[in-house]
Amino acid sequence: MAERVEERIEDRIERLMADYAECIDEGRLEEWPAFFAEKCLYRIITREGYRNKWPAGIMTCEGRGMISDRILSLRRANIFEAQIYRHLTSCMRIKSEEQGGWRVHTNFAVIRTMRTGEMIVFVAGFYDDLVIEQDGKLLYRERSAVLDSERIDTLLAIPV
Amino acid sequence: MAERVEERIEDRIERLMADYAECIDEGRLEEWPAFFAEKCLYRIITREGYRNKWPAGIMTCEGRGMISDRILSLRRANIFEAQIYRHLTSCMRIKSEEQGGWRVHTNFAVIRTMRTGEMIVFVAGFYDDLVIEQDGKLLYRERSAVLDSERIDTLLAIPV
Amino acid sequence: MAERVEERIEDRIERLMADYAECIDEGRLEEWPAFFAEKCLYRIITREGYRNKWPAGIMTCEGRGMISDRILSLRRANIFEAQIYRHLTSCMRIKSEEQGGWRVHTNFAVIRTMRTGEMIVFVAGFYDDLVIEQDGKLLYRERSAVLDSERIDTLLAIPV
Repeated sequence: MAERVEERIEDRIERLMADYAECIDEGRLEEWPAFFAEKCLYRIITREGYRNKWPAGIMTCEGRGMISDRILSLRRANIFEAQIYRHLTSCMRIKSEEQGGWRVHTNFAVIRTMRTGEMIVFVAGFYDDLVIEQDGKLLYRERSAVLDSERIDTLLAIPV
Repeated sequence: MAERVEERIEDRIERLMADYAECIDEGRLEEWPAFFAEKCLYRIITREGYRNKWPAGIMTCEGRGMISDRILSLRRANIFEAQIYRHLTSCMRIKSEEQGGWRVHTNFAVIRTMRTGEMIVFVAGFYDDLVIEQDGKLLYRERSAVLDSERIDTLLAIPV
Repeated sequence: MAERVEERIEDRIERLMADYAECIDEGRLEEWPAFFAEKCLYRIITREGYRNKWPAGIMTCEGRGMISDRILSLRRANIFEAQIYRHLTSCMRIKSEEQGGWRVHTNFAVIRTMRTGEMIVFVAGFYDDLVIEQDGKLLYRERSAVLDSERIDTLLAIPV
């Protein structure tokens, strides 16, 4: 009888990332905050801001409550109805274990399809994540989406 | 002496997907039907058609025979000679076990390069697959390529 | 007590590829030669050149020394300052074991972001790699970046 092999942490983090991407790509934004720890940091930041440790990013949310508020505003503004996101991720690498979690970097690109049919590579960059485990579940304590481009589309309203 | 670890089903499905993509990207379309079970469903469908369970898609093949026929027509029409596909896949997640197989969703994008040099993100979306095992081999019993765009390029002749 | 599972070679090769991509994407080109064996072949070649076994590619480096020289020239020319690369890889498949190593094919696309903000899918294709192990470390003995496009941007100066 084959026993179930203990799962690698890399595989569990890959799955967390896939579920996160699906949540956004399917527009189930109300479920988005559940990927974060209560005490957390989510931000979208340019490469330059990241490197120079600028305090403010393109979007910054501290704590799960602020993340939930962000979704409420988005729903009210109705912006995301006109566009569909598709996440592509690759090259995941665990950089270190720290603060009782895992520091992980992963390349990403998001392809945006407008209702009009227009399809573009909307943003590209990498995630700088701190993943922790709480009650047997992986959560983001920090997620920084570091963008390669310094020029940001004004439609960047949906979380990446 | 190290014993070979039992392979995770996720890894085996990843490999099936990689071989499938290679087959199309290298233009070996005659080998494409062998990725499917005898009794199968292959279709390309828009996000809206998928959500609303429309019976007809952009392309629908029921059974491996119909898939083979499709290839014959393509070869006769000579369409695929002018373009090269490159599959990018990511965010694979097993959604459930059902019908003795695995329901799997995976993000994808296909980059198309024309002989003229033009290169675009041709389609993006996700695969909704039902993977089964027959005689120790994984096969697609169902593969739906769900496209993010509602507007389809008329050149969409090659399977995705 | 859970014992650490022996790592799959597929996972180790994925990690090699992720570290390689990160090195280039972060512009740490001086570290790039360290991914190769002393005796090695690195080249960028078109699909047609690859298939017809043309001796010359778009870029060809034989040996780690030539790879290091290449970086020196690039630094002198200052070309890479104006652009940022982002690698996306997927569909890795080990094709065979040969020459005491692993023959591996992997799809890739590189998204290029210019300082001006312009963002395009710069190149797409697949890697044909021969990965070997030396002193417990994986290295490229051969890496051919096979491009789908026959028309190459003159800015293709950074290694892929």
